[in-house]
Amino acid sequence: MNSFGRIFKVQIFGESHGTAVGMLLDGCPSGISISTEDFETDLERRRSGAKGTTKRKEPDIPQILSGIHKGKTTGSPISIAFFNQDTRSQDYNFRAIPRPGHADLTGHTKFGGFNDDRGGGHFSGRITAGVVAAGVVAKKIISGIKITAKLVEIGGQTSDFEKLIENAIKKLDSVGGVIECVAENIPAGLGEPFWDSAESLISHAIFSIPGVRGIEFGSGFASARMLGSEHNDLILSAKGETKTNHAGGINGGITNGNTLTFRIAVKPTSSISLIQETFNFETQQIEPLRITGRHDACIALRMPVIVEAVTAIVLADLSLINLRTNF
Amino acid sequence: MNSFGRIFKVQIFGESHGTAVGMLLDGCPSGISISTEDFETDLERRRSGAKGTTKRKEPDIPQILSGIHKGKTTGSPISIAFFNQDTRSQDYNFRAIPRPGHADLTGHTKFGGFNDDRGGGHFSGRITAGVVAAGVVAKKIISGIKITAKLVEIGGQTSDFEKLIENAIKKLDSVGGVIECVAENIPAGLGEPFWDSAESLISHAIFSIPGVRGIEFGSGFASARMLGSEHNDLILSAKGETKTNHAGGINGGITNGNTLTFRIAVKPTSSISLIQETFNFETQQIEPLRITGRHDACIALRMPVIVEAVTAIVLADLSLINLRTNF
Amino acid sequence: MNSFGRIFKVQIFGESHGTAVGMLLDGCPSGISISTEDFETDLERRRSGAKGTTKRKEPDIPQILSGIHKGKTTGSPISIAFFNQDTRSQDYNFRAIPRPGHADLTGHTKFGGFNDDRGGGHFSGRITAGVVAAGVVAKKIISGIKITAKLVEIGGQTSDFEKLIENAIKKLDSVGGVIECVAENIPAGLGEPFWDSAESLISHAIFSIPGVRGIEFGSGFASARMLGSEHNDLILSAKGETKTNHAGGINGGITNGNTLTFRIAVKPTSSISLIQETFNFETQQIEPLRITGRHDACIALRMPVIVEAVTAIVLADLSLINLRTNF
Amino acid sequence: MNSFGRIFKVQIFGESHGTAVGMLLDGCPSGISISTEDFETDLERRRSGAKGTTKRKEPDIPQILSGIHKGKTTGSPISIAFFNQDTRSQDYNFRAIPRPGHADLTGHTKFGGFNDDRGGGHFSGRITAGVVAAGVVAKKIISGIKITAKLVEIGGQTSDFEKLIENAIKKLDSVGGVIECVAENIPAGLGEPFWDSAESLISHAIFSIPGVRGIEFGSGFASARMLGSEHNDLILSAKGETKTNHAGGINGGITNGNTLTFRIAVKPTSSISLIQETFNFETQQIEPLRITGRHDACIALRMPVIVEAVTAIVLADLSLINLRTNF
Repeated sequence: MNSFGRIFKVQIFGESHGTAVGMLLDGCPSGISISTEDFETDLERRRSGAKGTTKRKEPDIPQILSGIHKGKTTGSPISIAFFNQDTRSQDYNFRAIPRPGHADLTGHTKFGGFNDDRGGGHFSGRITAGVVAAGVVAKKIISGIKITAKLVEIGGQTSDFEKLIENAIKKLDSVGGVIECVAENIPAGLGEPFWDSAESLISHAIFSIPGVRGIEFGSGFASARMLGSEHNDLILSAKGETKTNHAGGINGGITNGNTLTFRIAVKPTSSISLIQETFNFETQQIEPLRITGRHDACIALRMPVIVEAVTAIVLADLSLINLRTNF
Repeated sequence: MNSFGRIFKVQIFGESHGTAVGMLLDGCPSGISISTEDFETDLERRRSGAKGTTKRKEPDIPQILSGIHKGKTTGSPISIAFFNQDTRSQDYNFRAIPRPGHADLTGHTKFGGFNDDRGGGHFSGRITAGVVAAGVVAKKIISGIKITAKLVEIGGQTSDFEKLIENAIKKLDSVGGVIECVAENIPAGLGEPFWDSAESLISHAIFSIPGVRGIEFGSGFASARMLGSEHNDLILSAKGETKTNHAGGINGGITNGNTLTFRIAVKPTSSISLIQETFNFETQQIEPLRITGRHDACIALRMPVIVEAVTAIVLADLSLINLRTNF
Repeated sequence: MNSFGRIFKVQIFGESHGTAVGMLLDGCPSGISISTEDFETDLERRRSGAKGTTKRKEPDIPQILSGIHKGKTTGSPISIAFFNQDTRSQDYNFRAIPRPGHADLTGHTKFGGFNDDRGGGHFSGRITAGVVAAGVVAKKIISGIKITAKLVEIGGQTSDFEKLIENAIKKLDSVGGVIECVAENIPAGLGEPFWDSAESLISHAIFSIPGVRGIEFGSGFASARMLGSEHNDLILSAKGETKTNHAGGINGGITNGNTLTFRIAVKPTSSISLIQETFNFETQQIEPLRITGRHDACIALRMPVIVEAVTAIVLADLSLINLRTNF
Repeated sequence: MNSFGRIFKVQIFGESHGTAVGMLLDGCPSGISISTEDFETDLERRRSGAKGTTKRKEPDIPQILSGIHKGKTTGSPISIAFFNQDTRSQDYNFRAIPRPGHADLTGHTKFGGFNDDRGGGHFSGRITAGVVAAGVVAKKIISGIKITAKLVEIGGQTSDFEKLIENAIKKLDSVGGVIECVAENIPAGLGEPFWDSAESLISHAIFSIPGVRGIEFGSGFASARMLGSEHNDLILSAKGETKTNHAGGINGGITNGNTLTFRIAVKPTSSISLIQETFNFETQQIEPLRITGRHDACIALRMPVIVEAVTAIVLADLSLINLRTNF
């Protein structure tokens, strides 16, 4: 249930305050150069530090347990662990007093109360360290494709982000945002006509990132208000280049060679310092709640690199599958 | 590549102008009552007929090939075929002159020119007959859950749809729309923390429907412009009922027992009678193109029942998986 | 549960006395030439007729429902159905009086009594028609490899099979046999070090054929009685040719380029005309049972082509997977 | 490629002389009591020490990285690593001089020479530590079933094993063996009619264990020489108890409630100290080879616990699936 991919298969594991988080990667071709340094840039982008991100500091040093030898992938499963270090003991009782907007209650329900709830456990954003590491390997497989995700909107504004976040922090509140992702130089032919369309696989991966509320490809929700004559992308050349890109680079579930584009909506962080109300399972009544601890004021800030990672994972898998479907 | 589900597995097959379209359903529990009549209502909703839908008339009579005996599912694979009848021979050459907005070119590229391109082949909306049939079985499995999808917006308007469509037809053009889907009385605990979140699986299935451009859960893209204090759904009771439902019934990838809600953006039909331009691979130049034939002016009109079907398929699978997450 | 393969995925469906049996094949590359005639030879080998095979006569005409166009695979799912014709109504009550050695009781238990039990239903050997059809397509994908399965032993003898079978028929009894399968000209590198070793996948497929009791690769059970110095296959050349082939063409789960060899044990047909005893669930006591109807005296006779089919299915899938183990 | 199971999914990783070996277990229900001590007995059985086993000594201490909290499974993925300690640097060049009977050459071919070949790398028997750990968890899930595997034959003899092994060691040679496995108190209804028959899944898992050459269920290869009247297991009671158990507890791919029985053939260890010949890729000629280092004289000795583990893994998965297939 916690794996993804058909040939290039990624599995993640770990809890926020457990021994380690990490990933296991199966189906990665042999012979790809990988060093510990290769992970640094993307892990650094995921790490906290900027204004609006949590004060928990994890060095995020990837320990390669298997699958890489003499600086190259061996073809056997790649396992990478991040041992947790900066974990503070928690007095907060998520089971009795579930935080609004969090998985405290659903996690408790699903796992019969046996889930590790320290720091959000397996639901923590910390779990994405493994995802970013897998993304680094995936990017190497599809080295010809350039994936770029960036924040294009925070709190409804398209600029002056820093001030907006400062305001939110001051008010003990949080803000949401919109991330745009483009993948350039993408080959035509990736994806399937049904079930495993390129959009299906990308959205599947994107919605596993905690906090995502929506995704749209190309002209997205705006296309629902367009006429066919406005929306159709006219084909200009034998290479399939189009005049516009309302389709976001995909037709019939299959990439058409034009730039893949999509946007995702990220909700404001659920953990806010403002007093809220929630149901207390011990007292069996609604009570005020003040969340303490270290939190991001805007989770969207740290998310672009994770969006890139899951996009790379999907495209790497589709690229490897595509080699297998043409005779 | 053309299958979906872990326990309740749906596979579809067929081409628009081939011998048959249909589906194969594996992992369906035994003992569920199913008759040919059970398929009628949903297949009728999918069928054309209303203003704005294609004039091709297929009786859509499901032929049960296997898996149902004495009116009950047997536990072995269920195969249902819809033999094609109203197929007109096509003079149109999709390979030489690919239609804008269609999969003509991507299908040709992906399958090396061997794809059946008559009437869109495997990319045709006709393929969804099998999906609707699978949805009928899925709805029986989750009979306690009530799934309702409906058009809430066409061409940017929320009412007077008929007039808008008439206008589009008159102008030889097409319009898009927005569909809203809700699933009421849904149990808490469906979905997984990562990769197979409830949103991941639903969006995966939804984006396999031809013409979908976006999906948003709960407050969706609007949540990116909200503060945490506005967006958080306050928990009101031990059952997990919330004051608002900005999360769309899902926290941390897992259903929370509140109504599941999502909206999808559907693009305007690509096939329009207005003259467009496209690249002609034979003459190697851009030329005017007039598409003839029978088409929907608004594909969103026929889509709600398909949206319900794939939602039911996802929820049936998650329900069967969930039987044993807890020991 | 009733599918097999990772890229080249085969699913079968149908019941012995239902509407049809057949298969659905996903992941088959496009552009492979296939005609209805291509299925004839192998289906004829599977069909009954020789002494010792059932008198039920099914013409076994494959109806191609999808995935093949202008004599070539299109890349979309291939569905083939065999509509049942020679089905006799059954008076026999398998539920009340389960036949020894059959799936009557286990099928009833597993599917809560809802399984179609006419003629064995989904457990019937008739279901293998779809498997043979899938095998025909698979053989085309691995056209360089020559797979040959043949009976090498019946009733403990290695020759004079006909007389032995005549004797069994005369005594109202049945006999078992041993089938040997070799795959020549096989590339090195197919299979995985663990879980999906070549032997794992082949044995998985072989044991799905009704009536198989054992499988051994290379020197098989005899190797348990050999010394390492006797058993080791000495490598003779840069191509990996070996002096002996005790390993059956596989080392560490991966084909080594030498001929793949395995043998399988097939039990005697369970349906015999000799009076046996069984438990009668209606009378709740052990009673004599005489099975009437049309049966094979030796199911091993019709099995070599099925063994070839599943072997081809495994090797086609492994070949398609292998295209990209190395980067 | 290196994972197994549908609901209860086991993945293994690691190389013999790399940083660690281990496993990742997904789909394990929450609430199962597990302590580090629970792994001791089975890991001790797998460990070397007895006469005929290698002198490499690994403490095999399982480090639980995730998925277990307060002594119970949490429902999220369980990752367990065994960090390697007693690894000696190797001067031996497996690439130039591949050992007969080993995966040196196939591993090199498959992975383009990038496989970690130190001590056999991912092909080493050491990788089974993770399998045994997964088996310990699996056994807890099916705690009502008693699985027992034991050596019943070494070098063709059914007793006096120790002397036989001493002789083999003295002669610098190795011996094979036969292991019998029984699973008692097994519920009826596990397994599927086709592709995922109980025999298919068990043999799939068994053949992933290095060194297995054959498997037979119930009367196995002997059944090929029996008459139907001898082989059929007469049903004695409403519970499905049978007079004999030639079927090995499985009919039509589905467990019948009688004891599951199978036997496997294990080849003699490939690494022997006797001088053998092999092809030297550097000199491009056949040359004598003397293997030094630490090896088992009979790998079958350490295998029963691994056989139990994979059997438990299959039965745990089938048990969890079975809860999902009945409505």
